[in-house]
Amino acid sequence: MKGIRKITPYVPGEQPNYSDMIKLNTNENPYPPSQKVAEVLRNFDVGQLKRYSSIDTLSLKKALGVKHNLSPDHFLIGNGSDEVLAFCFLAFFNSPDPILFPDITYGFYKVWADLFQIPFKEIPLNNQFELVEEDYKQLNGGIIIANPNAPTGLFKPLAEIERILKENQEVIVIIDEAYIDFADQSAVTLLDSYPNLIIIRTFSKSNSLAGLRVGYAIGNPPYIQIAASIKSSFNPYSVDRLAEKLATAAVEDEEYYVGITRKICETREWFAKKIENSGFSSLFSKTNFVLMTHPDLKIKKLYDYLETQNVFVRYFPEIQRLNNYLRISIGTQEEMEQVYQLLSSYLDRNKA
Amino acid sequence: MKGIRKITPYVPGEQPNYSDMIKLNTNENPYPPSQKVAEVLRNFDVGQLKRYSSIDTLSLKKALGVKHNLSPDHFLIGNGSDEVLAFCFLAFFNSPDPILFPDITYGFYKVWADLFQIPFKEIPLNNQFELVEEDYKQLNGGIIIANPNAPTGLFKPLAEIERILKENQEVIVIIDEAYIDFADQSAVTLLDSYPNLIIIRTFSKSNSLAGLRVGYAIGNPPYIQIAASIKSSFNPYSVDRLAEKLATAAVEDEEYYVGITRKICETREWFAKKIENSGFSSLFSKTNFVLMTHPDLKIKKLYDYLETQNVFVRYFPEIQRLNNYLRISIGTQEEMEQVYQLLSSYLDRNKA
Repeated sequence: MKGIRKITPYVPGEQPNYSDMIKLNTNENPYPPSQKVAEVLRNFDVGQLKRYSSIDTLSLKKALGVKHNLSPDHFLIGNGSDEVLAFCFLAFFNSPDPILFPDITYGFYKVWADLFQIPFKEIPLNNQFELVEEDYKQLNGGIIIANPNAPTGLFKPLAEIERILKENQEVIVIIDEAYIDFADQSAVTLLDSYPNLIIIRTFSKSNSLAGLRVGYAIGNPPYIQIAASIKSSFNPYSVDRLAEKLATAAVEDEEYYVGITRKICETREWFAKKIENSGFSSLFSKTNFVLMTHPDLKIKKLYDYLETQNVFVRYFPEIQRLNNYLRISIGTQEEMEQVYQLLSSYLDRNKA
Repeated sequence: MKGIRKITPYVPGEQPNYSDMIKLNTNENPYPPSQKVAEVLRNFDVGQLKRYSSIDTLSLKKALGVKHNLSPDHFLIGNGSDEVLAFCFLAFFNSPDPILFPDITYGFYKVWADLFQIPFKEIPLNNQFELVEEDYKQLNGGIIIANPNAPTGLFKPLAEIERILKENQEVIVIIDEAYIDFADQSAVTLLDSYPNLIIIRTFSKSNSLAGLRVGYAIGNPPYIQIAASIKSSFNPYSVDRLAEKLATAAVEDEEYYVGITRKICETREWFAKKIENSGFSSLFSKTNFVLMTHPDLKIKKLYDYLETQNVFVRYFPEIQRLNNYLRISIGTQEEMEQVYQLLSSYLDRNKA
């Protein structure tokens, strides 16, 4: 057979499904969507599904426009931020020069670069897993940075992001803000000054809608239009009718989401401090997960132990520098107390 | 700015939205999804949406396996057949030789070929708008044929499809069966004999779920796996939790869908005969639409007139050979009686 493409696909975290599990392996939100979202779902007329979904997803763009104080033409909506990122790679990364991204970051950047045959260069984070601003001053065909970064959880202050944008005004710089609601300053305020800036957001984390598949890009209209033309050439209707309605309800119910985000951040601070007191160390997280290790433990064994206790976390054997780290998503306070108890008792039994 | 892709996107049919319109321009189903689908939607727990959707969409594959008498690994599920087709283009059309498809067919084939820079050759349909089997005996890097074809509505008997498969065993031949439920024999029975066959299906037409975005490919497992690896490298979770559940319910409620499909076909036969008696002619449709013309009318004027009456149909000014044709989706019997009355009275007033 000729013309067949051979490719090594992205391997996502496993999706276990036990009734009594504590699932902390894919950075999902432990709290359900808001009452208003539930209500919109309950009142949805199934008969509407016979019609194609909207191509322009204007109702959602309008709601996002109010939230971000921008006009609707600053947004491109897609089937999760994964789809939006894929469209942006196709739209903006067509230079013969390599695109740049950290060696330890969202694993999908490399997969899209491979899939679309985009030259790329992975820039090593430093020994503290920090992004080094100076490394992004070299010849490139575009830049993509997750801020906060995953799986490290570290956040770059806006001033550094701005200097990277300033140094690279001839290429598109994508800032992937999947976890921004758990951090401080978004790069949205930089849009007016930097036409080369594209920001990516998702409803999967802070909005508790991972199973609904909605994400978006924010950018200046001429560039958003270019990414939209790729969407229109690939799968124009990818945001279904239910997804648009429920996501719009979520945007309009900000108070609830601010509340659960605050709870998650409080639980994160509590958990990070507790495990630190037990001798674990974790990176300073501005996300809904912590990346942690312990100087006296074989972390892989702890991972296996947690699994026997129906606690699922993420381990990255394929990333050399992380082979003694675990990434633990922040669940409810009760879940994290249970996890802390398990970690403590494991430590008591296994300390060197 | 460097690295920016310039592309001419696919322009889909307009999506008007008036309460009293008769919408016959995008081949949607006039009947709602089944009661069972409505029930699954009503009973869906919104809390589930905080979790990512399933990557393997196994429940839907199992239901399809029962329907088609195939194992679940014969299926790839995606966000509408558009997404599945895009993945198949990326997976199977990587030869330097041009892929082949008719000059008048689903307009998106050319758009994907352009987007992915796949060489292609459009093969003219004959003067009766029929696909000529012999034209598919030339050097090529793959073939894609919609059967029944759109926007013609014409169906190729399975024996001809089989001969095309037999002549082209070194490349993948995709048969796009979006409208097959309104016709007779599916190519599914040929899967055992032809590993080069990939069949595409959608829930948007006969299953009344255009707004939900679910489609699938059927093929032999080694090739389905290759297309799945592209999906995993692009957007692994693209089928959301609601979409998988509701589509599964639709598959399990075949009796209802067979019933509405029969009604649509009966209305199609009735409508085609009535307009023929009035002097229109239409191609012999095996779909849920008819492509029609009239020797004494400027069809564009009829199109504009129907729009003034809130009846939306499809006109293809960009396709030279169709510039005196209209494509009218088959609505309910009541809708088509209204449309017939409008056509009759228009004809009385405008006949030469």
